Order: sequence, then C-alpha cells, then structure tokens
Amino acid sequence: MIEPIALGQGQAVLHLFCKVTPLADSDAVLRAAEALRSDGHEAEVVGDDDTEVVVLEPAKRHQLVTAALLGHKSDVAFLAIGTDLWRLRQFQTDVEAAGLTVVDSYLSLTEVSEYASGLPEERKQARLNPQLPPEGKRAFCFYPMSKRRDEINNWYTLPYADRERLMYGHGSTGRTFAGRVLQLVTGSTGLDDYEWGVTLFGLSPEDLKDCVYTMRYDEASSLYAEFGSFYTGMVADLADVLLAVGVR
Amino acid sequence: MIEPIALGQGQAVLHLFCKVTPLADSDAVLRAAEALRSDGHEAEVVGDDDTEVVVLEPAKRHQLVTAALLGHKSDVAFLAIGTDLWRLRQFQTDVEAAGLTVVDSYLSLTEVSEYASGLPEERKQARLNPQLPPEGKRAFCFYPMSKRRDEINNWYTLPYADRERLMYGHGSTGRTFAGRVLQLVTGSTGLDDYEWGVTLFGLSPEDLKDCVYTMRYDEASSLYAEFGSFYTGMVADLADVLLAVGVR
Amino acid sequence: MIEPIALGQGQAVLHLFCKVTPLADSDAVLRAAEALRSDGHEAEVVGDDDTEVVVLEPAKRHQLVTAALLGHKSDVAFLAIGTDLWRLRQFQTDVEAAGLTVVDSYLSLTEVSEYASGLPEERKQARLNPQLPPEGKRAFCFYPMSKRRDEINNWYTLPYADRERLMYGHGSTGRTFAGRVLQLVTGSTGLDDYEWGVTLFGLSPEDLKDCVYTMRYDEASSLYAEFGSFYTGMVADLADVLLAVGVR
Amino acid sequence: MIEPIALGQGQAVLHLFCKVTPLADSDAVLRAAEALRSDGHEAEVVGDDDTEVVVLEPAKRHQLVTAALLGHKSDVAFLAIGTDLWRLRQFQTDVEAAGLTVVDSYLSLTEVSEYASGLPEERKQARLNPQLPPEGKRAFCFYPMSKRRDEINNWYTLPYADRERLMYGHGSTGRTFAGRVLQLVTGSTGLDDYEWGVTLFGLSPEDLKDCVYTMRYDEASSLYAEFGSFYTGMVADLADVLLAVGVR
Amino acid sequence: MIEPIALGQGQAVLHLFCKVTPLADSDAVLRAAEALRSDGHEAEVVGDDDTEVVVLEPAKRHQLVTAALLGHKSDVAFLAIGTDLWRLRQFQTDVEAAGLTVVDSYLSLTEVSEYASGLPEERKQARLNPQLPPEGKRAFCFYPMSKRRDEINNWYTLPYADRERLMYGHGSTGRTFAGRVLQLVTGSTGLDDYEWGVTLFGLSPEDLKDCVYTMRYDEASSLYAEFGSFYTGMVADLADVLLAVGVR
Repeated sequence: MIEPIALGQGQAVLHLFCKVTPLADSDAVLRAAEALRSDGHEAEVVGDDDTEVVVLEPAKRHQLVTAALLGHKSDVAFLAIGTDLWRLRQFQTDVEAAGLTVVDSYLSLTEVSEYASGLPEERKQARLNPQLPPEGKRAFCFYPMSKRRDEINNWYTLPYADRERLMYGHGSTGRTFAGRVLQLVTGSTGLDDYEWGVTLFGLSPEDLKDCVYTMRYDEASSLYAEFGSFYTGMVADLADVLLAVGVR
Repeated sequence: MIEPIALGQGQAVLHLFCKVTPLADSDAVLRAAEALRSDGHEAEVVGDDDTEVVVLEPAKRHQLVTAALLGHKSDVAFLAIGTDLWRLRQFQTDVEAAGLTVVDSYLSLTEVSEYASGLPEERKQARLNPQLPPEGKRAFCFYPMSKRRDEINNWYTLPYADRERLMYGHGSTGRTFAGRVLQLVTGSTGLDDYEWGVTLFGLSPEDLKDCVYTMRYDEASSLYAEFGSFYTGMVADLADVLLAVGVR
Repeated sequence: MIEPIALGQGQAVLHLFCKVTPLADSDAVLRAAEALRSDGHEAEVVGDDDTEVVVLEPAKRHQLVTAALLGHKSDVAFLAIGTDLWRLRQFQTDVEAAGLTVVDSYLSLTEVSEYASGLPEERKQARLNPQLPPEGKRAFCFYPMSKRRDEINNWYTLPYADRERLMYGHGSTGRTFAGRVLQLVTGSTGLDDYEWGVTLFGLSPEDLKDCVYTMRYDEASSLYAEFGSFYTGMVADLADVLLAVGVR
Repeated sequence: MIEPIALGQGQAVLHLFCKVTPLADSDAVLRAAEALRSDGHEAEVVGDDDTEVVVLEPAKRHQLVTAALLGHKSDVAFLAIGTDLWRLRQFQTDVEAAGLTVVDSYLSLTEVSEYASGLPEERKQARLNPQLPPEGKRAFCFYPMSKRRDEINNWYTLPYADRERLMYGHGSTGRTFAGRVLQLVTGSTGLDDYEWGVTLFGLSPEDLKDCVYTMRYDEASSLYAEFGSFYTGMVADLADVLLAVGVR
Repeated sequence: MIEPIALGQGQAVLHLFCKVTPLADSDAVLRAAEALRSDGHEAEVVGDDDTEVVVLEPAKRHQLVTAALLGHKSDVAFLAIGTDLWRLRQFQTDVEAAGLTVVDSYLSLTEVSEYASGLPEERKQARLNPQLPPEGKRAFCFYPMSKRRDEINNWYTLPYADRERLMYGHGSTGRTFAGRVLQLVTGSTGLDDYEWGVTLFGLSPEDLKDCVYTMRYDEASSLYAEFGSFYTGMVADLADVLLAVGVR
C-alpha cells in the first residue's frame, strides 16, 4: 500500500470526461464506481453474523457524480471527490480499463476562498465537504476559468478591497439563482491549466444558461474572467448514463 | 425510462457534425433519423382497427435537418431540435452506432433575446419553435459566435441602450436579406464554448457570403463579434446526403 | 438526381489538401479527376454513329488543378472549380474513396470585389471564370486570410475610401509581379474560417516568396491582414503528382 | 559509441509525460529506469572477488524521479537528469519500447540565473546539481513558463535593476513556503517552447496550490508570466507508479 | 521525368521532423538519404573500366543533415538542401515509405536579406550555398519565427533605416557567439507558416540556450519577434541517429 498524501482540509476533486470505445464494458464501469464509493474507509458493521450489513460512514465515502453529456467533446462525465489522490487515480485507471477513454479532465481542490473567510463554520464546511449531487438539479455543466492578467484588466494587480467588492457583487448575482442553480467552485491554481473549476447543477439547461449569461455582465466576469470549454449534460445514475451513451 | 429534464420554454438544439467511417451503414443512419422524428410523443390514432394510421402532432415532433458538407471538417451535419435532452442524446448515440463519428457539435437553446422582448407573440413563438428547414433555401452554414470582452471593445460593459441600438441595426441589415437568407440564432452561454450558434439557410452560397460579409461592417460585428469555425454545405433529404458522402 | 443549387455568378472553389494512406489507389484517383473534368455538362456529339466523339464545351467543364506539396501538412492539393456544389462534393467523396485522406480544405467563391466594380467586363469575367492553371507557372501556394478587427486596426470600421485606397495600393504592388506570379483571390466570408482564399502560381518558389514578402509591407497587409497556414508545392499532371508522393 | 556532447556546467533535464498503451510492460519500464540510473559512469568495485559490489559514485549517476499523474494529459511523469544528452535520449527510446507513449515532454538545463550570481558556491552547486526527489515532498507538479513580451509589459525591455528587484521579491514569496514546497527552475530558452520549466515538490497538493496562487500576486507573475500546461500527481517508486496506472 | 522548377539563386531547404513507427526500417532510411546525397547530378568517372569510381562534384550534391531529437515532438530531424523541389519531395516520400512519419516540417529558401546586400560576394555565397553541418557543432535546434505586426510594435511599418539598425544590432549580438554557435536563417514568407526558419548548430546545448537567451534582449527580438516550436537534439551520422531512436 502506498502511503496517502495528506490534504490539510477539504478534498480533491477529479473531473473525468470520457468517450466510449468499442471495448467499453458496462459492468466493469459500474464496478469501478462502486469500488470508489465504498473503498478505503472505516466501516461499521451492523447486525449479527448472518445478517450483517456493512455501513460506511457517509461523510467519509468518496463521492461520485455521473452525467451523460451531449456533443462530440465527450460522452460521460465523472465528478469524483475524496481525500486520497491515489484512490482517485485508481478510479481513473479502473475507468480506462473498463473501456472508457479519458479525453479531458480537471483536477482541483475544494476551498474556502479568501473572500469567504468570514463565513460561519457551517457554510465553510459545506464548501470544503459538499454533498453531491444536489437533489432534483439534474442539468449539469462544467467549465474551467481563470482571472485575466491583461494589460489593463489585471485581476492580480487589483487591491484586495476591489477584488472583494467584485466577488461579493458576483456572489449576489449568483444568489438570485438560488433554488434553480447550485454552483461548486473548486481551486486549481498550480494544479491544472485554469485557476478554478466551476460545476453547475440546474433544474433545467435554461437555468444554467440564464445564470451564466446574467453573471457575464458582472464586472468580475465581463472584465476579468477567461473561460475554457463547457461540458453540458444530464446527471443520472451511472447505469442510466451508460445506457444512454450506448455502453452495454 | 429516465424522467425528462423540463425546459421552461423553447427547445434544445443539437448540431452534430459527422465524418464517415468505413463502418457507416446508411440504413442504420436513416433509422436513427426516423426514430428521432417520430419518437416519444403523443400520437393520435386515425381509422378503424384494420386501417389505423398513427399521426403525430407535427408541433411535437423532434425536427431534424440534414446537410452534406464540403471540406475536411465533416461530411454530414445534423440539426436536431426538441424538448427532451435525453432523446437528443439517444439520437447522437444512434448516429455513432451507425458508423458516423461525431467530430464537432454545438448545443444551444432557442430563445427570445432581451432585445426582442417587445415582439408580437407570434414572432416570439417562431423563434422558440421554428419550423425547419425553410422551403427552397438549401445552401447551409453554421458558425458559433461570442461577443467580445476586449479591453476597449467589451460588449458586456456597454449600457443596455447601446447594445439594443447595435442589435437593432444588425437586425435591419439582416432583414435586407429576407427571402434570400433565413437565420436561426440560438443561445449557448454556459452550455457550449461560444455564446450563440448561428445557422443560415440561403438560396445559394453567394447569399450566405453576401449576408455575412455585409453584416461584418455592422458595429455589432465589426467591434464586438468573435467567430468560430464555419460549416458549409447543402440541405437535402438524409438519403441523398448519405449517398453524396459515400455512405451506402 | 439532386437539383443543383444555383450560383448567381461566378463559381465555387474547393481546395482539398490530402495525405496519402496505405490504401491510396492511383487509378481510382485519376478516375475521380477525369470524372470531375468531364461530368455533368452538355456535350456535343461529333461524327456518325460509329465514330462519334463526345466533345465537352470547354468553358463548362469543371476545372481541376493538381499539385504535389512539400512537408507534413499534406501531400496532394486539388483545386476544383465549378458551379455545382453537389458535383464538387462528389469529387471529394471519390477522392476519399480512392484512399486519400482530406486533412485540410477551403471553400470559397470566385468574386468581383467591391473595389473592382469599375473594371472592364472582360477583366471581371477573368475573375469570375478563371482558366487555370496558368501556363508555365508551376510553383504553387495557397493560404487563407482575413482582415483584422483589432482594437486599433479594424478594417471593417474604415471608411470605404480608405479601404479602396489601400486595396489599390496593394493591387499596384501585386502588378509589379505580373509575369512572375498569378494570383487568384476567392471570397469565403460566411463559408469558411477565413474571409478569403489566396492561391498563387509562380515561376519559382522565390517569386512566391518575393511577392508575399514585398506585399507584407503594404498597409493593407502590415496593418490589416491575418494569415492562416501556407501550403506550398509544385503544379503538375495528376499522374506525376501521385508518382511523386508515392501513390501507385 | 557516439561521443557525448559536453555540457559546460550543470545538467540536462528531460521531463517525459507518458500515456499507457495496451503493450506497456512493467518489467521493461523498470529495466529502462534502472539502466539509466546505473549506466555510463565510473564504478568503484568494493569487496573481494566473490562478494564484489559495484558502487556508483552518487554524484555521477543519472537521477530519475517518477510520478503517477491525474487526468487525461498523461499517466506517468519521468524527470531524468544527467550530463549526457545521448543517454537521456536512449532512456526515452527505452521507455517508448516498453510500451509507454511519450505525449508531452520538456527539455531544459539546470542553471544559476543572472540574478543568483552572487550566491555562495554551495547554493549554486545545489541549483546546478540538485539531489532529487526531496524527502517527504510527494505532491508533484510541473509547468513551463515564459516572461511576457507584451506591448506594455515586456520583461525583456526592463532594465536589469527592475528585473532583479522583481525576481528578489518573487524569491522572497517562494521562501515563505520553505519546508512545504521545493522548487526546481530550469532554463530552456532556445531549447523548448517556453523559457523555463518549473517543477514543484510539495507536502500536499494544497501546498502546491497555495504556493502558486500566492506567487501569482507578485508582479513578476501578475505582470510578466505566461504559463503552459500543468501536470500534477504523486511522486513514488516507479513500481508503485506503474501499478497505480494499470501497467503490469 | 518532371522538368525541375528553376530557383533563381540560392537553394530550397526542407526540414522534416519525423517520429518512428513500428514499420521503420533502418536500411530503407539510409538508402533514402544516400540517394538524395548522390542523385541527379553530373558525375565524374575516375579510374579505368575495372576500378572506376563515381565522384560527384561536391558543390552540386544535395546536402542532408541528420539529428536525433529529445522529447515528444519528434525523434529524427532531417535538414535537406538543394535546388530541385521535386527531388526534395522524393526524399520526403522515401522517408515516409521507410516507416518514419513526418509530423512537422518547414520549407524555406536560403537568402541574402535586404540588410545584407552590401556584404562581400563570398559571404553572400556562404549564405546562399552553405556547407552543412559545421564541423564540431553537434548541438542542434530549429525554430521558425516571424516579425510582429502588433498594434504598437509592427515591424512592417518601421522605416527601413530602423529595421536595418535593429538587424545590425541583432547581428552584432550573434557574432559574440562566433565559434560557439553557427546560425542558418532561411526565408519562408509565402511558403510556410512563419517568415523565417532558424537552425542553430552549437558546441553544446548551453551555447544554444545562452545565444537565444542573450538575443532575446535585443530590440529586434524583445519587441518584434514571434517564435514557433523549438526542436532540439544532437547532430550525428544517420546510422547513429537511427540507432539512438530505436530504428533497426
């Protein structure tokens, strides 16, 4: 066994975007997902010898969100969250072995940003240890983003007070979509090609579009945001996802 | 069955750009298209038991426009419109299973833009629920576009009145091509890599060229538009399209 | 038969850049070229029943220029010109079926630009219906280009008079290469990823280089031009081209 | 034998980023690594004839750091350091022959920058001849970077004194991460696509993220740095790395 | 036989960057190189009938420099120089047929730039007809470059006198590396994607790095140069190169 690399707080988040190959095997993908969700944690055994049931402590399980995507970029999205980078890598290896090719990905960490340091502990914990996916919000999109360092609009030369004001304004816009869109922003500076990964869960694709379109007029976006590729689809049980993309 | 994700109004639009593989099977592609056009909707049964005919309510059918394209980017374009994302994904899966590789794509939603909120209800409905393809306009092109957020020319920091004026001017130019070019603009902010998808149907490729070239001098384009790749070809029945690109 | 899509005036121009595959078949490529050159036009039958010869009206034939290229980008260039988009697509399909992979391409239309509207009819016709390739100019290059829409240098916000002056100056430079370089500029706004395709035929590669290098100092280029990839090679009979790139 | 190309001082650094293929062979990869670490150097023989042990002089051995990576970009990272370019190329050839495909790479040289010319000789030697990997810092990332030559922010037109001041400030920020992150900066101007390669070894991925995020506010980064792709993973023995990515 | 396309003065330069495939055949590659070096030129026959030796006039031979490269971009570099484009294309075809895949390339012409028109004839001839590779300089790199046409820094709107001054200053810096680095600059405007190809031969990779790094502070580079990808490796006999990259 390889000794895990400790995370100080929060969790690692690995988005895997996969295309189906002719060798894709539904059972093997399902086993990879099940193994991730149940592996490597303390388990409480309930019941007597004949009827014992292994119950994993929910907060400790690796979480896995699965979605079917639309378009050529990829067929299946996995959002895996946990504290053990080696275990997440094992999941990626299992997925590839099951005949899905990982064609894009994103590595980030849950975080409490500097602008959120005054939040109540409970809300900080919700950011560090989110419970996913949110109930009923099955429209899914992911995109990475960075703050601009242009010659005029350079986020990293702004005074802290200006950045805080812009982020609060941006947050206010976001809160007008409460109940329609849940947003997960995870940090990736130094870990992947952009500085943050944004995962949105919405009631419908129109909610995702309205939310991102509206926020684009906030100065934090209009002047300072750069976006990568957008991956859009529908959250569902992995078995349904695989069926929808033709993996049997 | 997976529960559909409701769209508030309007429809989802999935453009698929495909290349032919040696495994491409004309019958299977035709079946995928037929299934999309007739599937998943209430049907009215006409006639007695021996002669019953299933009639689908036209407005409810998924629509599918097909075109043969020129050049290396792809061979066949599908423009699929409907309200059920899972059904559109199933169509993509069927197309891939029939031996066409989806090499590019675009996901967007029909919309009534903020600048068109004063239109009569009938014209709004025509935007939300277009009937495609338009009769006789068989020259086809698609391109995605975004509004610039440059340091000087930033669409998203313009006051609403300026944006409205520019969009009205742009619309006026477009209307000078009425009868020659029909334009379908669908929104994709937060859903795909650009902010809008533009599909043009023209009498001839010269009409497409004249229209886009003329509009490029409008401020809305000259100062504020960024364009992606252009896909150009000829709208035709799928059987003719497949024959033209060598799928038997 | 699919009804052709009428072109108002001028012709469609399809550049195909191909790489050789192990399945490439010289005879099949030659047949595809011959079929394009002789197909789909009114033919005059000369002679009696036993000795009749089909003579195609030269001006109506599709034209095809072929060149062997140097470097990794592609091995063979086809420049196909004609009025029937479906026939051009058929040629592409035939070329692929003959074992050449189309790895890049360009779709454009012959045109008389707005700056040339005062030309004598004969010179306009030479632009709309060029006879290619020019005798003796066997050094070949193609590149696509657009006019800039930068924050300072924006072609599309210049007054017409300024654009006309710049284009005349550019044309004057070009004419100093008369006899050494023949230039074919075809329009592609709305049809392909750049706004024009430029095909040069020169006596030698040095003529191509001198011409493009000299023109780069014209304001029309230095301030306003963006260039895509350059494809360079030698015009020759298709049989010689195929032999040179190893297709047997 | 090919005569080595002498390096004046310092060592060549070859980063190889590899994807697993179905032909990957764990034993062959391990042999390639072992051969690199022990090959081509003077050896001291210890002990009598029956028990002789070959001891390589540690400073002369080629060093090799191995890491398992997360995400689609690659599965395995090799960081090979040594003075013989032909030997490093042989290692690359061996790795490919063992069934790993090199999908990205970086070539650079250890160096004492002009801003560090006043360092004590011992610290210069540590930069020219680093001992890697550092103990206990198993979180790994690599990214290439260049200094900007923008129209306003142009590193190469700054006076030396300004550059020195900015680099000292940047170094001070870096030193606040001493014990948490070890940084290896190697020069590649004229050798690879960026000007420097940066390899970070951290206690945890959070340390990597905190370090790069914090430094992004330094003027040396905020105004003058351009970054390439980030490769992130976990340092481990090669056998463990291969097991984690599914090579048996 | 295809009639050659005459070059006015100077020679064509074709850089081919190749990756090894499983079908690569060392003997076939060696034959392709030998055929290029000895083909198509007048030969003087020395000796009597039994012992005749064919001696090619050295100045007329096609020259070929070969190098093993480091990293994922390619394994083998060929630098082929000669006056017959068809013969260079034949070499490319032979190399591909021998199982090397040409993954990148560069086409350019030797030239005497406008700034060098006052050089003595002998030095002009050395630029038009270089003898390569230089003795003892076995560290190799190639990169393409263009002069900027930015909104502020636009090389092509500078007066000739300014350009001349900048190029002389750049040349002076280059001459401080005489004996350590030999530079071959060949022109490609209108022929390939950048405007010049730069090939450097150095005593060691440190000399290449020092030279390019130092020159980056010259205004000609700091304000006006754009660089493409860098290919770096070691010049050697083709047999040694092939062995090093695993071709047998």
